[in-house]
Amino acid sequence: MTSEPADPVDRPSADEEGSGTGSEPSGDFVQSFARGLAVIRAFDADHAELTLSEVAVRAEMPRAAARRFLATLVSLGYVRTSDRAFALTPRVLELGYSYLSALSLPEVAQPHLEGLSHELDESTSLAVLDGTDVVYVARVPTRRIMSVSITIGTRFPAWATSLGRVLLAALPDDAADAVLAHSDLRPFTPTTLVERSALLAELDRVRRAGWAMVDGELEEGLRSIAAPVRDASGAVVAAVNVSTARRGDPESELARVRPALQRATVAIEADLRIR
Amino acid sequence: MTSEPADPVDRPSADEEGSGTGSEPSGDFVQSFARGLAVIRAFDADHAELTLSEVAVRAEMPRAAARRFLATLVSLGYVRTSDRAFALTPRVLELGYSYLSALSLPEVAQPHLEGLSHELDESTSLAVLDGTDVVYVARVPTRRIMSVSITIGTRFPAWATSLGRVLLAALPDDAADAVLAHSDLRPFTPTTLVERSALLAELDRVRRAGWAMVDGELEEGLRSIAAPVRDASGAVVAAVNVSTARRGDPESELARVRPALQRATVAIEADLRIR
Repeated sequence: MTSEPADPVDRPSADEEGSGTGSEPSGDFVQSFARGLAVIRAFDADHAELTLSEVAVRAEMPRAAARRFLATLVSLGYVRTSDRAFALTPRVLELGYSYLSALSLPEVAQPHLEGLSHELDESTSLAVLDGTDVVYVARVPTRRIMSVSITIGTRFPAWATSLGRVLLAALPDDAADAVLAHSDLRPFTPTTLVERSALLAELDRVRRAGWAMVDGELEEGLRSIAAPVRDASGAVVAAVNVSTARRGDPESELARVRPALQRATVAIEADLRIR
Repeated sequence: MTSEPADPVDRPSADEEGSGTGSEPSGDFVQSFARGLAVIRAFDADHAELTLSEVAVRAEMPRAAARRFLATLVSLGYVRTSDRAFALTPRVLELGYSYLSALSLPEVAQPHLEGLSHELDESTSLAVLDGTDVVYVARVPTRRIMSVSITIGTRFPAWATSLGRVLLAALPDDAADAVLAHSDLRPFTPTTLVERSALLAELDRVRRAGWAMVDGELEEGLRSIAAPVRDASGAVVAAVNVSTARRGDPESELARVRPALQRATVAIEADLRIR
């Protein structure tokens, strides 16, 4: 070996780092890999086609670096290019879907979500907890009632959703408290519950009741009712919700939704046990 | 600058390359990014949890390299680790879903696939063409009739599926021929059509008829009927299929499925135009 760095892949070139400022990567962190992933994330629903300059801006790196990462993605079949525009190809699904295909839960739950959605004529979803967020892993949409489009992979702050409150309620008290401590408890609507003590009290209620309802707290006009899904050991592994456009008073809606929701979670749990 | 390589991220260390053999990356190819992506792909449905050694074997790289890429993924929240096992987290969905969320087609099609599935009590899917493969981008499963689990992102050789034959039939003759030339035309079952000339003739029939049926060619006992989805300009942008467990003779099954399939594709096309 010469005076060359022992692990050049960990060290971005001056070109890639621009002025050379920024955090110093640790020896185990492959900076160029992390930055390549940022190039993939530069594309989203509102940015399906991007120019090189746009990718560089959105991924926060110099054009020369963005160009090399895009060239790598094109070469691997993850990005296509025409004219001066770049777009992701369906092949990127193999990255995200490595996770989903390894997870039997969405496959097991899907038919029951379909049945639940059909019975109530409402959208239903299955979500898991990831840090301070809930992540949708299965979904049966009916009509769109939220201002943002929800797809598999969509994330929301756990504390502000019925799915998340069901999942947080299943954590030990100190773990739930830690999630709240790391969450940005800002109101989405005038009725959003943001007091940590009030949220902990609500989690306690959810734990005993076995369901959570969030009524206009995440978005005006949106009501969501969720219940837990337990594995054979009794551990809560996911939550199922039904979202509605706030028809009628909360009590009668709860009376309409809860029995069907409970039948669905019981059926999912039964199917999970026989796998 | 010193004698250090101008672009170290493009050059894997001796450690990462093992003996140092292997193809030489071009100046625009960021090898460490490509290898990091291979680490993500090491995980799949049958390999949801892997040890460091297993990742190294499956991603075809030395343990030291696999360790650094895994550490990077853990640091970014894409991989979790406990004991000696590594697994993907739901956060990887944000990589694959960058593509899906940018594609309005699955969102537009989903309710119509639900309706079609419910009407026929069969699984339905929406797929697009990516090179020589079809890729599932939306799906409503009923019961599992195939030996492999199909999820969004699942790929099959276009030539051997009804979805793929509909999509290939929409290509110019020379383009379809080129896809067949790059495809591995090996039989999946005794009845798989593998002759290039026979496939081209079938594509011609599909183009004129407006539907394709693959009956036990991809898997014994599986029948699939597909039809195209066109955008406002008349270009075929996707295909919808209905898969069944070969009930009754092909003609009566076709008579049962085709009208509902056609209503669904017409409805999807109408919804695509108003977006």
